Parts: sequence; structure tokens; C-alpha cells
Amino acid sequence: MNEPSGLTIRPATEADLPAIVAMLADDPLGATRESPDDLAPYARALKRLTEDPHQHVVVAVRGERVVGTLQLTFVPGLSRRGSTRSIIEGVRIHADERGSGLGTRFIEWAVDRSREENCQLVQLTSDVSRTDAHRFYERLGFTPSHVGFKLQL
Amino acid sequence: MNEPSGLTIRPATEADLPAIVAMLADDPLGATRESPDDLAPYARALKRLTEDPHQHVVVAVRGERVVGTLQLTFVPGLSRRGSTRSIIEGVRIHADERGSGLGTRFIEWAVDRSREENCQLVQLTSDVSRTDAHRFYERLGFTPSHVGFKLQL
Repeated sequence: MNEPSGLTIRPATEADLPAIVAMLADDPLGATRESPDDLAPYARALKRLTEDPHQHVVVAVRGERVVGTLQLTFVPGLSRRGSTRSIIEGVRIHADERGSGLGTRFIEWAVDRSREENCQLVQLTSDVSRTDAHRFYERLGFTPSHVGFKLQL
Repeated sequence: MNEPSGLTIRPATEADLPAIVAMLADDPLGATRESPDDLAPYARALKRLTEDPHQHVVVAVRGERVVGTLQLTFVPGLSRRGSTRSIIEGVRIHADERGSGLGTRFIEWAVDRSREENCQLVQLTSDVSRTDAHRFYERLGFTPSHVGFKLQL
């Protein structure tokens, strides 16, 4: 998808992994859980993601530079009359691009893709500490209607 | 999976749909969004779910009777060093079985299956109004660390 601003949103490839993992790690929470010096586990995961038609790992590219990434997952279900929902995970925007409107365009892209797949619901969870992100999602029309529970295994 | 209590947890089939949809609708939130008199959309959704190796819609059966349902989804990802997480959705326990320990066994089953799939994280969201459910998940070790955002399309 080509944007008038010179922004392209396209599927991530293995060549994008150094930039993607650098963004995952350049984050107060991600810093402790990523390994930018060892890309092998990310390459294995990207291969599995690329083979799965319900998974869409994308990058936002400006010029030649990867400036954002997110993962959009389509999840069919029985509830709500057999509706499909989408889940947005792993949203990262390059530090240089924060405040540029890229985050808004990126989430709008994910919402548009979800509509195209006939999803009735888009959902995401955000760590309670990310209060700026919460205001951002509320501005985009998301409702903080749920508590997100996690269990580390 | 056979439990000593006479409980079996197994994949849902089309024959289970009347019981499953009745449980989805027998709920303060579900009552307004389900259609137990029209099973066709549920049958279509179950077919898609059954064909997807990352989706596991299961029922808990006691004797011949379906007494619970949940959906377990395995979601590979790039973050956390390419880790896979599982998502639990659509948990319903028959009204007659509430307080029987079935909910606990059911979530423990989902956590065990997630471990078998090498998931590093199990997650779920629960409507902010379901405060009893929140205490239940916290007792099982889940942390309410996230805000769950939804956007209806």
C-alpha cells in the first residue's frame, strides 16, 4: 500500500528483521526481553508467520527505511454469531517517527484490513504502564472495556 | 482428555453447537449478541475453526452432557524473541456447573496445552464488568497487567 506521504506498508521479509528487532528492543519493556544480536529465533518465527494465512506481520517503510512494524492476526470464533475478530500486537514506531502521524496511519491501516476481512471487532492489549498509548487508542475510537490478563509460562 | 471426575475435554463438533450456543447466550453480555435459534453462522464458523491448526474450540462433557466451552488460539509472533502466545476466548460454563471447579480445570487444561505448544505466555481479556471472573483468573496466577481495547466495526 502506497501512501501520498511516501510511506509504504507491506509484508515484512527476513531482510527487514534487523530493523524490526531493533524497534522491538528500543522500548522500556522490550529492552529486557529481546536479543537484537541473535536474529535466528526471529527468522524462525517470521517463517512460521509468513506461512500462516491468518497472520500479517507488516512494516511501514519511508524511502528505503523501515520505520514501523505491527502484527495483525485474524481470529475466527463462535461467539457473536460466529464472528471473526482481529488482534493487533507488537506495534512499534521508530523513535525518529514518533509524533509524525505514522502510528495513526498504521492503526487505521490495520482497521481497514480488518474491515476487508469482515471482522466485527478489532482488539489489542496495552500494558497498564503505557498511558500515552492508551490515550492514543482512545482517540482512534478504541474502548478500554476489558482487563487484559497474562500468565507467563 | 479424561478426568477422574467423569469430565472429558474434547474438540467441539457440529452436534455440540446447540449446547455451545445456548451457553454463549446464557450470559448477561452474550444474551444481546447471540442467536440460538439460527445455528447456521455458528456452523460455518466452526468449520473454519476446525480447519485451522492454530484454533482449538473444545467442550467439557460430563456424562453425555456438554457443560463448558472455550476457544484456545495459538499465535506465533516476533516479539519476546519470536515467542508463541496462546489466547483463551469464549469461556462459558453451564449455569448448573458453576462453583463445581470445572472453570478451574478448564483453564488449567488450556494452560497445559499451551505449555505443550511451547507458548511462553497465555493471555485473555475479560470485560471490566466481570469482577468475579477477574478474581478467578488472579487466583489461577494470571496478572491483570494490561488494558484490553476493543473497536467494534
